[in-house]
Amino acid sequence: VEGTRLARTEFPAKATHAQTRAHNAALVLRALYDLGPISRADIARLTGLTRTSVGELVSDLEDEGLAIDVGRGPSTGGKQPTLVALNAGARTVITLDLGERTFTAALANLRGEIATRTSRDLDGRDGEQAIGVVHELIDEVRAAATSPILGIGVGTPGIVDQSGTIRWAVSLDWQDLPLARILQQRHELPTVVANDSRAAAFATYLFSGDERPANLVVIKVGRGIGAGLVLRDQLFGGDGEAAGEIGHVVIDPDGDACHCGRYGCLETVASAPAILRHTGATSLEALAEAAAAGDAEALGSVRAAGRALGGAIAHLVGVLDVRHITLVGTVTTLGEPWLDAVRDEATRRSLAATGRETTIVDGGTGEDVTLLGACALLLTRELGLTVHR
Amino acid sequence: VEGTRLARTEFPAKATHAQTRAHNAALVLRALYDLGPISRADIARLTGLTRTSVGELVSDLEDEGLAIDVGRGPSTGGKQPTLVALNAGARTVITLDLGERTFTAALANLRGEIATRTSRDLDGRDGEQAIGVVHELIDEVRAAATSPILGIGVGTPGIVDQSGTIRWAVSLDWQDLPLARILQQRHELPTVVANDSRAAAFATYLFSGDERPANLVVIKVGRGIGAGLVLRDQLFGGDGEAAGEIGHVVIDPDGDACHCGRYGCLETVASAPAILRHTGATSLEALAEAAAAGDAEALGSVRAAGRALGGAIAHLVGVLDVRHITLVGTVTTLGEPWLDAVRDEATRRSLAATGRETTIVDGGTGEDVTLLGACALLLTRELGLTVHR
Repeated sequence: VEGTRLARTEFPAKATHAQTRAHNAALVLRALYDLGPISRADIARLTGLTRTSVGELVSDLEDEGLAIDVGRGPSTGGKQPTLVALNAGARTVITLDLGERTFTAALANLRGEIATRTSRDLDGRDGEQAIGVVHELIDEVRAAATSPILGIGVGTPGIVDQSGTIRWAVSLDWQDLPLARILQQRHELPTVVANDSRAAAFATYLFSGDERPANLVVIKVGRGIGAGLVLRDQLFGGDGEAAGEIGHVVIDPDGDACHCGRYGCLETVASAPAILRHTGATSLEALAEAAAAGDAEALGSVRAAGRALGGAIAHLVGVLDVRHITLVGTVTTLGEPWLDAVRDEATRRSLAATGRETTIVDGGTGEDVTLLGACALLLTRELGLTVHR
Repeated sequence: VEGTRLARTEFPAKATHAQTRAHNAALVLRALYDLGPISRADIARLTGLTRTSVGELVSDLEDEGLAIDVGRGPSTGGKQPTLVALNAGARTVITLDLGERTFTAALANLRGEIATRTSRDLDGRDGEQAIGVVHELIDEVRAAATSPILGIGVGTPGIVDQSGTIRWAVSLDWQDLPLARILQQRHELPTVVANDSRAAAFATYLFSGDERPANLVVIKVGRGIGAGLVLRDQLFGGDGEAAGEIGHVVIDPDGDACHCGRYGCLETVASAPAILRHTGATSLEALAEAAAAGDAEALGSVRAAGRALGGAIAHLVGVLDVRHITLVGTVTTLGEPWLDAVRDEATRRSLAATGRETTIVDGGTGEDVTLLGACALLLTRELGLTVHR
């Protein structure tokens, strides 16, 4: 019996008693979360657990404040059963979007409902100073919490590894920064740090309702350009957690210098700073207004930026054949002419059969989906809950 | 209790007795396949099944000819245990590669070892005539089989859906062709039909040995250009089974007309017919020789074709951050100058951090991996075996 082969075939292992109990407790919590208010008998029926086990596990959850009795349901023959529900306010999650020029923090309950929100302009601060802003924001929103804090979820630009270390976030001058560990130690709370596009993709996936697609892509187009991928109902990070880093694919080798050290990356053409630099506009809003008012040059620039992104999306669709693409970020401010150019170019440049069926939608600036995604990642890890509404 | 939500949360269902037995039989077969020769006691220990169950299940497999006793192993205290092994020759798989100009059929045993192989040049035959060639090949190799046939596995160009219907295979003039059903009915055998790049990717994944990567891409570059994706240890087809169809992404809107109806698709620049058309060479071998002999124009053409593919790979790496890429197909005949150009351009055009760690290797013409992949897909589906060596 050869060791390496055995590991590879992954024969199912027997679970220990403690593992079984934790698994069963998570099952009951999920039943409350997904299906509550619900009777103990229905939980037993749906999970396959005995009524005795369910009674004990619900009682434990009630002791922790996570479950509450909420009255009686309709009788199915005997006496009316007591219904149990999740107490969504029993825990609070601190969630952050480390945006392009603004960091935002908020409090969310177990349903991802946002209660408190506060922002700080960075005003050019980066490196250690930017970390200071994160601490300040966490302290500020934490003071407003009315239930125990479950943990911290953070959406950040840059390449982030599984441990929550930011490998590289150019705009913030962060390199190999173990942000999850830093926040965990300073605030003594479990912390999840994820790439912002990926957090946004996760939230978009979770909150797509009953038509939730197995595969979807969220592309954040602002100061940088990056995509978050949900493939087969899971976030996909690739071999080095850099999947979706489409902003640094060279689309024109004779193009402008990029801060990554190359020339002609997608970001040098289609990102917010590139668009402003090329047009001399003072803001994306001003550019959008000029284009809407009939300024041919402004409109041309808006469309050119859209086409560059559309070309990159054609490649993405060619690789993944994914039908659901959402665009978020400040560049969505450019509105219809930009979005039309993105769609036209993506369709024109990708296989007819797939291109036609691909929908590319405007998801707005995307701050909320990033906050929700970071919160959902924390809830998934800490409680095994799959947040949805 | 809301129906849609319940379905979505997928609470584990209880298995029936028959399901349990089939599951356990598959476990034992896998143990023999992966770890045999092995004692019944070791199978029981590894699978968690009782020794009585293992005894019965092994006995059933022996009755079917799939398992055989192969002598005695070392004693672990008591008497020497009898070892059981998989009888790899107990079943035969018919496997086919429907190549660009040649169809190949072979017989393989349960370990994917190929015993008989026969090919037919298409000589321009397509449509119904090409289906006729498939039938002839199957009849021919089947006559040589010395054990019961388990089924047929087919790797074909084109977009193939889960049912084995070929949506679109331009070079063979096949559209909406239910090839799996046709072969199943005519030959009365279970049949799996898959895209050839995808079959090649599956085989490359399975036969990568102990260092098997979770993510890899095989790109077939011949008459057409298509990629097969293994993501997180599974083939990935996308929403419409067209994932990897990178040959029809437009890389130059002012380029040549493509048979798909667009202009400037990757295939109009980097496929075998495009390279031959642009250079006027009589064959890829002749072009490779001219380039090697110092013909600057030939070398330039070879490098240009390589760069075009490299650019598309840069986009693919940007989207997936996948580190293992294998190139197969007739165009690999162009050798080092072409491969170097592919690598240079892919590295130059994708994010430094990821591009440097991506390996792009020459996998040769790729006929064998396609045959093996088609065989492996059939074995996986029919016996639940994950073929490897």
